[in-house]
Amino acid sequence: MSSFTHFNEQGRAKMVDITDKSDTIRTAIAKSSVTVNKKIYEQIINNGNSKGDVLAVSQVAGIMAAKKTSDIIPMCHPLSLRGVDISFGWDLRNEEHKLEITVSVKTKGSTGVEMEALTAASVCALTVYDMCKAVDKGMVIGPTYLAEKTGGKNGDFKRELI
Amino acid sequence: MSSFTHFNEQGRAKMVDITDKSDTIRTAIAKSSVTVNKKIYEQIINNGNSKGDVLAVSQVAGIMAAKKTSDIIPMCHPLSLRGVDISFGWDLRNEEHKLEITVSVKTKGSTGVEMEALTAASVCALTVYDMCKAVDKGMVIGPTYLAEKTGGKNGDFKRELI
Amino acid sequence: MSSFTHFNEQGRAKMVDITDKSDTIRTAIAKSSVTVNKKIYEQIINNGNSKGDVLAVSQVAGIMAAKKTSDIIPMCHPLSLRGVDISFGWDLRNEEHKLEITVSVKTKGSTGVEMEALTAASVCALTVYDMCKAVDKGMVIGPTYLAEKTGGKNGDFKRELI
Amino acid sequence: MSSFTHFNEQGRAKMVDITDKSDTIRTAIAKSSVTVNKKIYEQIINNGNSKGDVLAVSQVAGIMAAKKTSDIIPMCHPLSLRGVDISFGWDLRNEEHKLEITVSVKTKGSTGVEMEALTAASVCALTVYDMCKAVDKGMVIGPTYLAEKTGGKNGDFKRELI
Amino acid sequence: MSSFTHFNEQGRAKMVDITDKSDTIRTAIAKSSVTVNKKIYEQIINNGNSKGDVLAVSQVAGIMAAKKTSDIIPMCHPLSLRGVDISFGWDLRNEEHKLEITVSVKTKGSTGVEMEALTAASVCALTVYDMCKAVDKGMVIGPTYLAEKTGGKNGDFKRELI
Amino acid sequence: MSSFTHFNEQGRAKMVDITDKSDTIRTAIAKSSVTVNKKIYEQIINNGNSKGDVLAVSQVAGIMAAKKTSDIIPMCHPLSLRGVDISFGWDLRNEEHKLEITVSVKTKGSTGVEMEALTAASVCALTVYDMCKAVDKGMVIGPTYLAEKTGGKNGDFKRELI
Repeated sequence: MSSFTHFNEQGRAKMVDITDKSDTIRTAIAKSSVTVNKKIYEQIINNGNSKGDVLAVSQVAGIMAAKKTSDIIPMCHPLSLRGVDISFGWDLRNEEHKLEITVSVKTKGSTGVEMEALTAASVCALTVYDMCKAVDKGMVIGPTYLAEKTGGKNGDFKRELI
Repeated sequence: MSSFTHFNEQGRAKMVDITDKSDTIRTAIAKSSVTVNKKIYEQIINNGNSKGDVLAVSQVAGIMAAKKTSDIIPMCHPLSLRGVDISFGWDLRNEEHKLEITVSVKTKGSTGVEMEALTAASVCALTVYDMCKAVDKGMVIGPTYLAEKTGGKNGDFKRELI
Repeated sequence: MSSFTHFNEQGRAKMVDITDKSDTIRTAIAKSSVTVNKKIYEQIINNGNSKGDVLAVSQVAGIMAAKKTSDIIPMCHPLSLRGVDISFGWDLRNEEHKLEITVSVKTKGSTGVEMEALTAASVCALTVYDMCKAVDKGMVIGPTYLAEKTGGKNGDFKRELI
Repeated sequence: MSSFTHFNEQGRAKMVDITDKSDTIRTAIAKSSVTVNKKIYEQIINNGNSKGDVLAVSQVAGIMAAKKTSDIIPMCHPLSLRGVDISFGWDLRNEEHKLEITVSVKTKGSTGVEMEALTAASVCALTVYDMCKAVDKGMVIGPTYLAEKTGGKNGDFKRELI
Repeated sequence: MSSFTHFNEQGRAKMVDITDKSDTIRTAIAKSSVTVNKKIYEQIINNGNSKGDVLAVSQVAGIMAAKKTSDIIPMCHPLSLRGVDISFGWDLRNEEHKLEITVSVKTKGSTGVEMEALTAASVCALTVYDMCKAVDKGMVIGPTYLAEKTGGKNGDFKRELI
Repeated sequence: MSSFTHFNEQGRAKMVDITDKSDTIRTAIAKSSVTVNKKIYEQIINNGNSKGDVLAVSQVAGIMAAKKTSDIIPMCHPLSLRGVDISFGWDLRNEEHKLEITVSVKTKGSTGVEMEALTAASVCALTVYDMCKAVDKGMVIGPTYLAEKTGGKNGDFKRELI
């Protein structure tokens, strides 16, 4: 009986081979949000936060995070982003103050950019939390989700907004 | 009249000075979740995902992200984490399959570790999304929020779970 | 004669041992500048750059670079920054449009923060260049220099501004 | 009246879309310098610095920084560098000791490499400062500027040296 | 006599120009190992290590390190990996307990992926050491070597296993 | 019967809590090696490698890697290194050309620096491989191991050299 045993690697991690995928234009749009209290809302819209302009910093953080995605998400393939655009809106219905974050990412490559868009949206929200947490730690981030994607052989994806 | 004008820096960003804060034990617990469909749920619990053991990879990603927090969040002070623990649970009520993520972070330092816990929880959720997105791109992340914190001069924080 | 030869390491690099240095409050102020043409100057002050608010992005870049200093400068010791503050001014004398950058860094630690201040100032300037280079590639960065430092056993340093 | 307001994002940051740009050979040459005192000059040319061979370390730092450029400069597109070459010269006229740094960068890609060359030149200079600052903190970095570039649809750029 | 002297850069570092190399499919397989004592061997195969599943964490670390290779190895060109697969085996001959690590890397690009495979194999081994060092610090890593490579103009390489 | 099930996290990863450990002086010495052929040996000692001075670049890479250790090794606690020193020797016995690498690391902190020393030694060896692989891909790295450590409550460790 041999004393050399080959390890059963079932269930273990790998970065799957995408060598056969072709380079096409890929886009993805992700959404997140931060529900804040009235004081934080007013501080943001009046640019009254002592740490700086909350949305300006959040936007830079989101763009830089999009570029770091494959360094943060273990099985995510690296790719060179061609464009990242982030915008904000306020949903003041239901007596809430909800900052809505929309991230749009584009590239030409062999994998999709869903993870880059979702990571950027998450980091935008985390940055808002960081800059406002001295006022209230009860802010709630998300839901965070993919709104749509195009490109790649599996076809496009689009879902209704939450 | 002088042609030297000093820029009005109101509203611009800074990393606030915490030199006067003292080193104390700090803890934080953050929560996030990923709502998945039945097929992904079964794939995760049966370890049937071809990219690897979803929760094992997610956990490693979360711990590594906790250590990268000050590199990702622009105004967040760097500090040396002393411990990170991440656990998962399934909430199957309401005909949903909701993976619940709990991250507990601890250090001895001059700022809190809320951002480290929230960042780790977000990256855990993003990693689950990445590994399961070939099955369904409709997964929803969060809400993501701080459940409790201790340490620091501003006292403890604890909120009811969402 | 032995065939084992010990390599002569004279002149080779090391990160010098600072175990014996004590933790004290350390501050440093560095200066840099970017000389731009009139069109760029007007674009910046009117926030008319299509890539975004030039100084807001520059400021975030500088703060994040300060935290990355020991990852960029090979023999620089890592330390945890306690505060970073960056401000801008315009020197319009001599028919020039010179954006002046001042970075102030503070920590409590066993080495000085000169490199963190100088690195942040350099990255602020580079970011301004990046955001405005579509208008004119002839911008000139610097001189970049240390204006003052305090803390540490070697005493304080202060020089006249350039 | 709707209580949903869309945020006015004018002036906020984005990484502009370059999907339509074609891949061509791109080169850039950037210049920087460090003006040092006589003692530092002699230490460098005699390899007498106790931290190591100043120019050898500076060169490695510059090459590594070129590769990190899109991680440091927020709106800079990532690209894969094909070659980086750094050389030094001494200008001893005017009773000064001025170390001149020249960085040449090359790639095949859809954006220019000006920022990579400028970032590398800046980090070379900062590394020289770091290794020599125990002797004199009065060293002056720069001016730092783009000397020439080729490739891309906007044509070539070349300026007289400063 | 001129007082401007051009520095003799002989022997100094550069990242060599690979602009002329063409994009082809590249693969590399690297091997490493960790020789552990019986107690660690049993802990690993029974998943009894209090820090977690040793091989699962090692595998994630190796894949993430493969993506960081050009950030760690100074003169290594950046490239976008298309696939990374890591497997383990136990060699129990000779009364040893030797964990064998095999890393297989694939891309389509203009340089080979030997360094990515070797770096991943090294980091897998280092991670095993880290997670088991509380039991015994006498573990031995390696030999670490390239087993085979394909692609590129210099032809394939294959060596007998050590 | 509840439909909420708590996940069994046995065997999953965590960064263990070291809050109770005290700050003491910690040192570690790690060893690695690269066995090269005669041509590479002569190229290194004569500084004839077209990519640069192999050992100078290797040394810088090792020091920078030591600072990145907790970013590379998932469960490794971050700490601020106080000193890193790397030296080389040649063992020419047995008709081999074996470059021996010795890394010495020191800090004052709450965990040991074994991983920093081992990571630096591994990266030194990988860098030598990278710079010389155009000559021969058959180089062999290691064995890599901890030679000694001091500090911490578990006492000192010292083993005979391999």
